[in-house]
Amino acid sequence: MPKISERGIQMPSSPIRKLAPLSDSAKARGLKVYHLNIGQPDLPTPQAGLDALKNIDRTILEYSPSDGYRSYREKLVGYYAKYNINVSADEIIITTGGSEAVLFAFLACLNPGDEIIVPEPAYANYMAFAVSAGAIIRPVSSTIEEGFALPPIEKFEELINERTKGIMICNPNNPTGYLYSRAEMNQIKKLIQKYDLYLFSDEVYREFIYTGSPYVSACHLVGIEENVVLIDSVSKRYSECGIRIGALISKNKELLKAVMKFCQARLSPPLIGQIVAEASLDADPDYLRDTYEEYVERRKFLIDRLNMIPGVYSPIPMGAFYTVVKLPVDDADKFCEWCLSDFEYEGQTIFMAPASGFYTTPGLGKNEVRMAYVLNKEDLGNALTVLEKALEAYNTLEK
Amino acid sequence: MPKISERGIQMPSSPIRKLAPLSDSAKARGLKVYHLNIGQPDLPTPQAGLDALKNIDRTILEYSPSDGYRSYREKLVGYYAKYNINVSADEIIITTGGSEAVLFAFLACLNPGDEIIVPEPAYANYMAFAVSAGAIIRPVSSTIEEGFALPPIEKFEELINERTKGIMICNPNNPTGYLYSRAEMNQIKKLIQKYDLYLFSDEVYREFIYTGSPYVSACHLVGIEENVVLIDSVSKRYSECGIRIGALISKNKELLKAVMKFCQARLSPPLIGQIVAEASLDADPDYLRDTYEEYVERRKFLIDRLNMIPGVYSPIPMGAFYTVVKLPVDDADKFCEWCLSDFEYEGQTIFMAPASGFYTTPGLGKNEVRMAYVLNKEDLGNALTVLEKALEAYNTLEK
Repeated sequence: MPKISERGIQMPSSPIRKLAPLSDSAKARGLKVYHLNIGQPDLPTPQAGLDALKNIDRTILEYSPSDGYRSYREKLVGYYAKYNINVSADEIIITTGGSEAVLFAFLACLNPGDEIIVPEPAYANYMAFAVSAGAIIRPVSSTIEEGFALPPIEKFEELINERTKGIMICNPNNPTGYLYSRAEMNQIKKLIQKYDLYLFSDEVYREFIYTGSPYVSACHLVGIEENVVLIDSVSKRYSECGIRIGALISKNKELLKAVMKFCQARLSPPLIGQIVAEASLDADPDYLRDTYEEYVERRKFLIDRLNMIPGVYSPIPMGAFYTVVKLPVDDADKFCEWCLSDFEYEGQTIFMAPASGFYTTPGLGKNEVRMAYVLNKEDLGNALTVLEKALEAYNTLEK
Repeated sequence: MPKISERGIQMPSSPIRKLAPLSDSAKARGLKVYHLNIGQPDLPTPQAGLDALKNIDRTILEYSPSDGYRSYREKLVGYYAKYNINVSADEIIITTGGSEAVLFAFLACLNPGDEIIVPEPAYANYMAFAVSAGAIIRPVSSTIEEGFALPPIEKFEELINERTKGIMICNPNNPTGYLYSRAEMNQIKKLIQKYDLYLFSDEVYREFIYTGSPYVSACHLVGIEENVVLIDSVSKRYSECGIRIGALISKNKELLKAVMKFCQARLSPPLIGQIVAEASLDADPDYLRDTYEEYVERRKFLIDRLNMIPGVYSPIPMGAFYTVVKLPVDDADKFCEWCLSDFEYEGQTIFMAPASGFYTTPGLGKNEVRMAYVLNKEDLGNALTVLEKALEAYNTLEK
């Protein structure tokens, strides 16, 4: 039997999805499982998107252009303009989810052995895409005590060497919900400029910012326009995770040309998803407002209740719909597994993502989990009751 | 400005799509362009698939499982059984098109510098996916004179060294339409067995076989079950290129586990595409029969007429819906460009794929093009008239 590749071995298992078989078993035993593990909103897709889906009257579901339909890209220009992001349709490449945008960005920019610096905890799949490209993630740790603020910029600079090709950020941040301030973004900009690095900026949660602070996009940073690679996706914005429509945006023509070759190789992004995504840009303004207000309420509800549970602590996330929570357990991986495999409270249990999978540095995040507040308040309330009961039972068990 | 990666430079441009801007310009000038370049069938998607699309009544377009919906995978088991391919639902991973299946197979099986042997001309994007994985394609040339039969197996064996990890075939073949015989498949099997290699077998055209010869799948080869990686896609079978639904099939548990990590990183294959693909398995038997008979007629029509044009030669393709054609020109790349940029006949021109892009060996296929017979006979007839006129004009021009 031939061997699998080194990268096939190195690829991390998804911290979000690796416990899914335990969750399936729990459901098979008749338990109600509250999914706090995955950013799958329970909110509806905009009616405009669903209507477009219903109204497709094509008889051939054919390839679309490798960079996506021009009509969609042109309409996106207007969407970005609302956020003062000034791009043309030719600077937007439609991808199969934000995931493919990250993968293609890494493949097009990074040689095997090249390094990118990423503040951790970070979206776990950046690591997976780096491994796919043979690149190395050098983490700079942010801490729950500092509310997951950008670590001192000197920590980034210390890691820069001749193999360093870029910095990757997620803003607002998944998994922490942190929003980088203008001052922090300017510190990053100076470093990018000083060492002529790429700035990969994943900004798929820009709709979900809950503080008075401004959204500072990497595209707002003057002087590093050619260095910025913006990663985007409609998944979260419109509750359309399944249509797999994202985008890679850049003003760097060489980079766009290289990315296009990867796009041509996989022929085209999903046709139907593009139709839905394009129509969703016309979503009723009430839709986005209602969605936003719903998350505002859930966030307050979740964080307030979490911090009332003895030994539990969560900083206040400023954006996205996640938070990283410290639990009074020694090993959150084991605790999350145990919740699914050995615990139930009144026929219910909870599925959380162990935070260790969001850190590259071994040993960090051992007593932290990521929670997504993508459930309605009633379910969130039940999930928190289950968590409280589970912590009591688990810690009794351990003693 | 930071540099793009070596692989970003090495990535080949798609021979199928790289002339698209010239075609767009021709259309902008008001010309009718006949697309012989791309395997985008003009035949309809099955009604069962279109109905399923219309009947989607979800309010949330959510993620699907990373390996695809179980209901779809279970239904595929029955589909493969009809071809005597014996697989379980757990041995099928749903991918974003056949493209992703090839990419993930290479990422999971090949280390940078590893080699795979591929008979050429070959589907051009294998090269792109190999470059993405840092792997090297070692070509063995088949020739138009031999009707693109499998080259002598000794030619494969000569290339085998300690970096060789597999052989990749496409059967029935894109771009040549060749169907490997039982004897040829057994030769491949013996080599796979002798050197314990992977056999990557792309069999997306199994519905389109026009000779009395049997379809011998890599999955039929006894004794190398753990070595075979089957690549599949619904794109061509159901005229559903745009839904981006493919599959990777293997009996090798280690391999499936590694591939699943790449699947989890990109979260899920397209949701809506899976719904359409699953429903399409219930397509009216008349649909597949009519489609098949249509291609039978087009094939005869195209090949007969091609071989009547002075200096033009095409062997008879036994499967798929492509053929590689020798043209009386010195440089088919230039001729294909010229047809789009400088020629028209009665307001029409043709878009063909230069065959050089399907060869890895430099210089081969210089006077060959790939044609897809995915147009109706009237359009095919017009395209062939344009080709004949274009050849006359081009060869006058050259003198």
